[in-house]
Amino acid sequence: MIGLGLIGGSVLRAASAAGRTAWGATRSTVDVEAAVADGYDATIDVVAALRRAGERDALVVLAVPLPAVDDVLALVGEHAPGCLLTDVTSVKLPVLDAVRRLAPRARYCGGHPMAGTARSGWAAGTPTLFSGAAWVACVEEDTELGAWREVAALALDAGAHVVPLRAAAHDEVVARISHLPHLLAAVLASVGAYGGPLAAALAAGSFADGTRVAGTRPELVRAMTEGNRAALLPVLDEALGKLGAARGSLASTGGLAATIDAGHEGLQRLDKHRTAPRTGVRVDLGAPDARDGLLALGERGGRITGLDGDVLTGEVG
Amino acid sequence: MIGLGLIGGSVLRAASAAGRTAWGATRSTVDVEAAVADGYDATIDVVAALRRAGERDALVVLAVPLPAVDDVLALVGEHAPGCLLTDVTSVKLPVLDAVRRLAPRARYCGGHPMAGTARSGWAAGTPTLFSGAAWVACVEEDTELGAWREVAALALDAGAHVVPLRAAAHDEVVARISHLPHLLAAVLASVGAYGGPLAAALAAGSFADGTRVAGTRPELVRAMTEGNRAALLPVLDEALGKLGAARGSLASTGGLAATIDAGHEGLQRLDKHRTAPRTGVRVDLGAPDARDGLLALGERGGRITGLDGDVLTGEVG
Repeated sequence: MIGLGLIGGSVLRAASAAGRTAWGATRSTVDVEAAVADGYDATIDVVAALRRAGERDALVVLAVPLPAVDDVLALVGEHAPGCLLTDVTSVKLPVLDAVRRLAPRARYCGGHPMAGTARSGWAAGTPTLFSGAAWVACVEEDTELGAWREVAALALDAGAHVVPLRAAAHDEVVARISHLPHLLAAVLASVGAYGGPLAAALAAGSFADGTRVAGTRPELVRAMTEGNRAALLPVLDEALGKLGAARGSLASTGGLAATIDAGHEGLQRLDKHRTAPRTGVRVDLGAPDARDGLLALGERGGRITGLDGDVLTGEVG
Repeated sequence: MIGLGLIGGSVLRAASAAGRTAWGATRSTVDVEAAVADGYDATIDVVAALRRAGERDALVVLAVPLPAVDDVLALVGEHAPGCLLTDVTSVKLPVLDAVRRLAPRARYCGGHPMAGTARSGWAAGTPTLFSGAAWVACVEEDTELGAWREVAALALDAGAHVVPLRAAAHDEVVARISHLPHLLAAVLASVGAYGGPLAAALAAGSFADGTRVAGTRPELVRAMTEGNRAALLPVLDEALGKLGAARGSLASTGGLAATIDAGHEGLQRLDKHRTAPRTGVRVDLGAPDARDGLLALGERGGRITGLDGDVLTGEVG
């Protein structure tokens, strides 16, 4: 584990709790000391931790913020060039590009455990942070399915279910369901704050709900939204188009039915997907169409929930 | 009480619970039957209820949706022309205009109890719906303070605190903190739904929070947003401007710091207003500057919490 903040520290705890031999490294002395005090194997020497991983054919997990990924990948390329490698960063295409540039021999499969809290650092982590959460494991044309299997096994050990996706599909959907919500919350908080103490006195449920994630640490929100620039721009344009259409309709006819009805129906459609009956599926990683099977499952909102040898079990709506 | 839905039904219950003689009327036979079955004095004969109010100098409370306000006001103007009159509609300038047109002799003071649930109709009401809520009571140049006092007394009896505001100030602030959140939630739900079953599978906290109010009945959202067109348009333009600036900055420099930092700071500023220490205030409705005192209190986010004779007590940050 390279990086022992909220996510990395929680993965280290979860892996250890599942009986794995796991060790971590980070340049944060605070986090190293806290991890060691909690009985974990942690060091400030990132190079030594990577060399040890290379010698033992261990799975290296990058759990550093996106702006630090390049530096750590350069160390991976130098000190553990052929290792099994994954990451827990919230955007996937930029990391895939960086791996191809800086650690091209690594057996890489990108990951994104979709869990978190507003707090950060080792002290904020728990071994159960990923329990019941989705953990995206990326499938590209050149992803080695053996590496994919190791990432899926780690995610399942941590109590998550696994969603196989292309990096591009991941980045597009998180732009919709995570990055756009953060930007709209920021805009709403700004517009609300212009209302001053009176706005504070009258704001209730709709404003509190709509602005909650604007309380997240700005550097975290910047890292994920700016890091997903290519996928976020067209989604932001969709939102601008819809909000502009609402504005135009209100100004011209006075009506907002199209906007409000579409939102209500959209929410119902998503709820329907979520509660649709699911059927069990099996994917054999040794089968020639395994890659297509995984991607078809993920794109339809399905999940992998079990692993026995090379046979994955899961469900899809 | 004219209208016995969620709000009107709850006001009737709260007024009765406070020991007032209260009666209601609505054209909904379902709501009349339910109210009568619960032991309340309710009729389908709106004209008779208004005449009775006129004879007894009772406070008439309009609790019908905005699109029905004109029809009921015409009846008020005909059958209880000089009555004490208030309403519980979520926009205030359009109702004030309608009163001036249709019931110009009424001793009117507009009101807006800022509480609600996603459900509707008599059956959804409770006597404690307004407990701890803000209840705006409007103060215009021509508002008779005796009428204002009656509305404040009703709100306090219902367990609410009273926020004195001009109708225009009310409509502007609810556009910011209630109507814009509903439109942004609708846009976000629409954009999210384009992500299909995969979006449903991966959406978590930020999306759920940001879209929650898109589940509200569309006709209720339309009534409040379309009814507040004049105040909502400039607020919608502010939001479009800020979202467009974020888009431009992401496309050109790749940075979103201005948007994200402003949202985070805005939220903190609002929290600071909300938790600022408050000092007690008194307003004597018989004093010559009472109207200015009330408005200064409301605009600064203050509230009236008690009434003894003509002396109001409250607090302001």
